[in-house]
Amino acid sequence: MRIVTLLSDFGNTHYVSEMKAVIYKLCDYASVVDITHKIEKFNVLHGAFILKRSYSYFPKNTVHVAVVDPGVGGERKGIVIKTNNYYFVGPDNGLLSLAAKEDGIRQIVEIENKKYFLENVSATFHGRDIFAPVAAYIARGVDISKFGRSIVEYESIELKASISGDKIIGHVVDVDDFGNLITNIPFSIIEQAGISKVSLKNKELRILKTFCEARAGEMFAYKGSAGTLEIGVNKGSAKEMLDIGIGEKIWLKY
Amino acid sequence: MRIVTLLSDFGNTHYVSEMKAVIYKLCDYASVVDITHKIEKFNVLHGAFILKRSYSYFPKNTVHVAVVDPGVGGERKGIVIKTNNYYFVGPDNGLLSLAAKEDGIRQIVEIENKKYFLENVSATFHGRDIFAPVAAYIARGVDISKFGRSIVEYESIELKASISGDKIIGHVVDVDDFGNLITNIPFSIIEQAGISKVSLKNKELRILKTFCEARAGEMFAYKGSAGTLEIGVNKGSAKEMLDIGIGEKIWLKY
Amino acid sequence: MRIVTLLSDFGNTHYVSEMKAVIYKLCDYASVVDITHKIEKFNVLHGAFILKRSYSYFPKNTVHVAVVDPGVGGERKGIVIKTNNYYFVGPDNGLLSLAAKEDGIRQIVEIENKKYFLENVSATFHGRDIFAPVAAYIARGVDISKFGRSIVEYESIELKASISGDKIIGHVVDVDDFGNLITNIPFSIIEQAGISKVSLKNKELRILKTFCEARAGEMFAYKGSAGTLEIGVNKGSAKEMLDIGIGEKIWLKY
Repeated sequence: MRIVTLLSDFGNTHYVSEMKAVIYKLCDYASVVDITHKIEKFNVLHGAFILKRSYSYFPKNTVHVAVVDPGVGGERKGIVIKTNNYYFVGPDNGLLSLAAKEDGIRQIVEIENKKYFLENVSATFHGRDIFAPVAAYIARGVDISKFGRSIVEYESIELKASISGDKIIGHVVDVDDFGNLITNIPFSIIEQAGISKVSLKNKELRILKTFCEARAGEMFAYKGSAGTLEIGVNKGSAKEMLDIGIGEKIWLKY
Repeated sequence: MRIVTLLSDFGNTHYVSEMKAVIYKLCDYASVVDITHKIEKFNVLHGAFILKRSYSYFPKNTVHVAVVDPGVGGERKGIVIKTNNYYFVGPDNGLLSLAAKEDGIRQIVEIENKKYFLENVSATFHGRDIFAPVAAYIARGVDISKFGRSIVEYESIELKASISGDKIIGHVVDVDDFGNLITNIPFSIIEQAGISKVSLKNKELRILKTFCEARAGEMFAYKGSAGTLEIGVNKGSAKEMLDIGIGEKIWLKY
Repeated sequence: MRIVTLLSDFGNTHYVSEMKAVIYKLCDYASVVDITHKIEKFNVLHGAFILKRSYSYFPKNTVHVAVVDPGVGGERKGIVIKTNNYYFVGPDNGLLSLAAKEDGIRQIVEIENKKYFLENVSATFHGRDIFAPVAAYIARGVDISKFGRSIVEYESIELKASISGDKIIGHVVDVDDFGNLITNIPFSIIEQAGISKVSLKNKELRILKTFCEARAGEMFAYKGSAGTLEIGVNKGSAKEMLDIGIGEKIWLKY
């Protein structure tokens, strides 16, 4: 068994299953696992963050295919990145960059060799017609140098959190199905500064360890399962109580 | 590994997983792949189109199970269709017909032999109690003649697009998660007639190749990933800008 | 192949895929199947009912992991229950109890041995950090006694339906994607009492066998695919016509 993962903004639709079909047709010992298909439409930053938080839980040599691709059919490249432990396949728009950099990039190849594409390549669905078959060939053991020439430059997303004066500055990088806001602020910043409460939009939030420490309906901050600061409401939705979306900058006073 | 696919209007719920469970219990080398479970409720035409656009990406001999079945428990038959490359299992209400005819029908069997059903057959969930176990037995190699007698007549859906005078007439057969409208109008009609723009409901639409050629917010027409004409909005939703649903007839002037 | 199932209130998101990743990393012949991730948020009763209706369709020795866990990180225990045919893994809050009792409990173990956890255990996501790896080790053949000491007491949910006088009393335990209301009232009660119609909130409902026996738009009662009484509307939604949610008690007059 060789795992190939899929991440996209397609929703859980037949676009996803057509990608799976292509992979299974080319590699019958692949096992395709969805990371998520609910990336906010066209939000490359959101996709890049989810890929970064999830990729390393998978077995070594997993092939991660990610498609949040508003530039499909245009001039953006398709790339394969080989890192220390994984392969990443997708558009060269920054989507793969956070995960790949964290794992350590060994080689980047521009996908050019049509021999590894489906016979008819549509202008709107490279996920099925290019990225899925390339991933299947990687799973079959094809050396990534076969797909095209190695390149050095690639699109990269920066996503820094910082602390200065009495402010912690970061971004909301995900909102989960419970309405919790996930930030890119490493919780270690909070711990090292010995902070026990923060304020956001003039609301003061206690920093707690678990949801059950909070009062029902209380908004609070905590260390989330990605190791970063999150904002949640016990048995409620922070998303509904605050007006903040994915990608927005936040300032926390402490 | 032998792939069995599932398509339904159940939503991504435990009804789907009960079908998977039945298949895995009877055939432990099956691998069950969802095509989609978001077919519009009771919309057999929608299901038939999605099955038609997706089935052939899967490996030869895949068993496709489709359940959009408002007549469940009533007089409609359950059928298995063997085509040149695949098997199709589901209700005889036209759902399987577009895909099966395209691939070339070899044999149709009415599902009658209770030996291949679950022990207790509910009146409301033949997907789990009849179609899933029959699919598992096909995956195990059971000849489809064992399930019942061969039949010739079956329910068939017609879905024609045509061009006449200055009008192209077709149907919307899907609306995807981005709000793009997918029609059944073969793009080859557009190409052969050398058409470069169409008008729909008095809106003039350019025919473009990719989303990034359009201005942000521009509605336009393009060749979709199923080879048919689609209508989309760059970074927007055609579904929200037009009031057209799945199954509706559309007239395009050119 | 060894099946591990997942049930949660996470939605179909990357939280689910991180659990899958952990399982595949530890057990490469596991096959992870979703039961559903659309359990009503924090609704342990809903999760317990869905697990009860679905678990037994899976092959013997399937490991069922269920996570509806408002008390995560607090004092509730994590447990493994070995039953006559299956394993159940999750929080000790009643979620596993309906299914486990039905199948026959052989042994309950409190999950204590950190050797079988991920290295870094978050306070908010025991599904990924504790339950997923424990399930993978069960799939690998580890004896459940290794996870901790056997216990006798565990949280249990009671969910009784009864008939008295001219009333049948039960609960709505699920609302499906079609808007059908699923109760915990065994249909055998209806059959034994020879009841042919019931009334709910002053609406009289015929008891029918199939949806196609009802008039379009008619609300009626029927034997559902879990063997219990359900309330549906032919080509419509009972959920929208009645104001009843999951967990609510209902009184049916007959």
